[in-house]
Amino acid sequence: MSSHTVNASIITIGDELLIGQTIDTNSAFIAQELNKIGIWVHRRLAVGDVYEDIRKALDEEGKQSGIIIITGGLGPTADDITKPLLCDYFGGKMVINEQVLAHIKYLFEKVYNRTGPMLESNLKQAEVPDTCEVLHNARGTAPGMWFKKQNTQTTLPSMGIEGSSVYISLPGVPHEMKGLMTDQVIPRLLKAFSLPAIVHRTAFTAGQGESLLAEILKPFETSLPRQIKLAYLPNYGMVKLRLTARGNNREELEKEATPYFEQLQLLVKDYLVSDEDEGLETVIGKLLKEKGLTMGTAESCTGGYIAHLITSIPGSSAYYKGSIISYANEIKTGILGVQPSTLASVGAVSEETVTEMVKGAIETLQVDIAVATSGIMGPDGGTPEKPVGTVWIAAGNKDKTATLQLKLRFDRQRNIDLAAVNALNFLRKFILANS
Amino acid sequence: MSSHTVNASIITIGDELLIGQTIDTNSAFIAQELNKIGIWVHRRLAVGDVYEDIRKALDEEGKQSGIIIITGGLGPTADDITKPLLCDYFGGKMVINEQVLAHIKYLFEKVYNRTGPMLESNLKQAEVPDTCEVLHNARGTAPGMWFKKQNTQTTLPSMGIEGSSVYISLPGVPHEMKGLMTDQVIPRLLKAFSLPAIVHRTAFTAGQGESLLAEILKPFETSLPRQIKLAYLPNYGMVKLRLTARGNNREELEKEATPYFEQLQLLVKDYLVSDEDEGLETVIGKLLKEKGLTMGTAESCTGGYIAHLITSIPGSSAYYKGSIISYANEIKTGILGVQPSTLASVGAVSEETVTEMVKGAIETLQVDIAVATSGIMGPDGGTPEKPVGTVWIAAGNKDKTATLQLKLRFDRQRNIDLAAVNALNFLRKFILANS
Repeated sequence: MSSHTVNASIITIGDELLIGQTIDTNSAFIAQELNKIGIWVHRRLAVGDVYEDIRKALDEEGKQSGIIIITGGLGPTADDITKPLLCDYFGGKMVINEQVLAHIKYLFEKVYNRTGPMLESNLKQAEVPDTCEVLHNARGTAPGMWFKKQNTQTTLPSMGIEGSSVYISLPGVPHEMKGLMTDQVIPRLLKAFSLPAIVHRTAFTAGQGESLLAEILKPFETSLPRQIKLAYLPNYGMVKLRLTARGNNREELEKEATPYFEQLQLLVKDYLVSDEDEGLETVIGKLLKEKGLTMGTAESCTGGYIAHLITSIPGSSAYYKGSIISYANEIKTGILGVQPSTLASVGAVSEETVTEMVKGAIETLQVDIAVATSGIMGPDGGTPEKPVGTVWIAAGNKDKTATLQLKLRFDRQRNIDLAAVNALNFLRKFILANS
Repeated sequence: MSSHTVNASIITIGDELLIGQTIDTNSAFIAQELNKIGIWVHRRLAVGDVYEDIRKALDEEGKQSGIIIITGGLGPTADDITKPLLCDYFGGKMVINEQVLAHIKYLFEKVYNRTGPMLESNLKQAEVPDTCEVLHNARGTAPGMWFKKQNTQTTLPSMGIEGSSVYISLPGVPHEMKGLMTDQVIPRLLKAFSLPAIVHRTAFTAGQGESLLAEILKPFETSLPRQIKLAYLPNYGMVKLRLTARGNNREELEKEATPYFEQLQLLVKDYLVSDEDEGLETVIGKLLKEKGLTMGTAESCTGGYIAHLITSIPGSSAYYKGSIISYANEIKTGILGVQPSTLASVGAVSEETVTEMVKGAIETLQVDIAVATSGIMGPDGGTPEKPVGTVWIAAGNKDKTATLQLKLRFDRQRNIDLAAVNALNFLRKFILANS
């Protein structure tokens, strides 16, 4: 690593993180944004709404990191103790910030359309320690705060400028935190620190597990120079392979990383979905647009999850026309035209049924390509012949239909996820092979 | 808190957590399970695949917690350094565990149906430090490990038995970690520690923000005795209100918490969805089963997400028949029977269109109740009259349809989430008022 490397810590505050009621998605976003500008998050710490625990966390992370990002604890409810604590920790006193107050009033009157006086708890959000620089929160009432603290205990080269650490406090609401990170925090960090160059290249694979990919890639990984690292990022039947190069010059790094990335893609070419960090739904969207095709879905066991994944992509209405979710057999026969005799002889979870579902979807939805699913997701509904986890998938166009059977072994939620991802990958391969 | 209180720390290991590629769902599950048996997780720490950082984390958390649960870093790839590190940290040497080896062979031959010799990396998973107790992982190849370490540096009463800490190492794959927690870790912790009683009661609200609920509940919150705490857990348009009582006797706690919980429910009765910790989709399922009704959906802007939420509940096929996802206008007119003249005069995002969609869904899907959505989720597609975030929702039965307009202000993903949650809550109210 270069001597410019700045380490960061993320501290998330809130009992809800420690009792498991809230999944921390903020840390992942913050880490991604910091990573992009060459800041390495080496620790993430979550503590509860407990004064001593928060104080201890600030002390500890201040000793190890040049940048400490704190989220949560700034809401209007009584269990939020972070702001007075920060005021105490960094010295100074609480003052009303007139710009924040005006912004809160504006939000209440013009955006939230509230009438009557504001709540005391909301007015309190305009109070900030006079030792911080206020970061404007365009998306909500709680402002961000930027503190600087001289650190006398360490003089690590990986710290901030002149041995001082920067502490940045952000609200825990993901939408507000994201706006503050992008609009306020990242631009200020770029100004305040001299950062290394960092280059990421991601190959996105499906259909093969981490172990076998690692076996294939072992000699390649050993051959990598010190400044380039390979990471395996498995996620529901897919594995992302990411090369990260660090150095002082972005252009040089790009040049250096490129042949390694090309070699990597070649080594996993049988499983390669994309050479960018993007999901199957994005790849399918690009393919369909490129070929000028429309698609639809006929989902039974995945219950709309495939449709949800596809429509989560902005602009998907250009190629996605819709879905028939046929949870009930009457919908399979009535709308998709599956033959009652098929259901009677081989059942809803069968190769024949999903084949008829695809044909029905193409006709009913008037699309070029369709994918269909039918299966038993559990926990109940399995039989000795068709145990929980049995799934049939079909993908087809007007002329041809292909099918795939899965035997999943997980809980309901994961079976649904895996069935959807496998159906999307099967659809992708069908499009590539048949249009 | 009782003197029996045992503190826990969760340490998650893996660069993928620090670069933001993986969202940590494991910690939330572990915290929930520990909480249920009265163990308070007071710190969660994530560190990368860096030897010194992991060692430091073990040292630090060992000083503060009686139970340290470690996840991740046990996979078969080259970047996993945790197992040798643990072997070193707790003394002893690596040995092949014959039971683990037999289990790995069984999985490969009988479950994964692999032929040929096993990979060296998989065989290595049968190696464990001889200082640990092996925890059987029924769902995968990497075993859990249970270590005990005398802690000479602290003698906090909140520590483990006789000042020693228990360290439990689990694989990072969520499905495997969950099985190990439930089947192995929790039963062993219950035996090893004398734990306090803990009682949670959760009221689930929708339709009102955290600030206003906090204002309503302020006097109530102030009136709570020391051993009962109120927590606000906001999540996409819903707020969970949870009372937690801690003490030595579960029965006494139940008795003590009940009147407070009843008072809480009364105070928020206008927004109360359920007095259990369950989602809108579960509540709707119960209502429909109780009343013997079937339902269907007609989704445009939510693109299948409502169907996905409903079908994520086991047994939903008893009341949920299916959905027409009508992303394209031809599907709105062709399958749902929306009048082309309606689309021409007031557009797809209109009260009239969602009303016709509900009627069409009831007829086409042959259901008792239906809910429909149409809106502009962004980032593109907005107009001055109908900006991004404009959503129309309708819920109805054969005789009656009710509508609701939303004006959302977020990004595409959050707009979809909020539209779906609001549609489910609107549907719930419609069922309560009209059947």
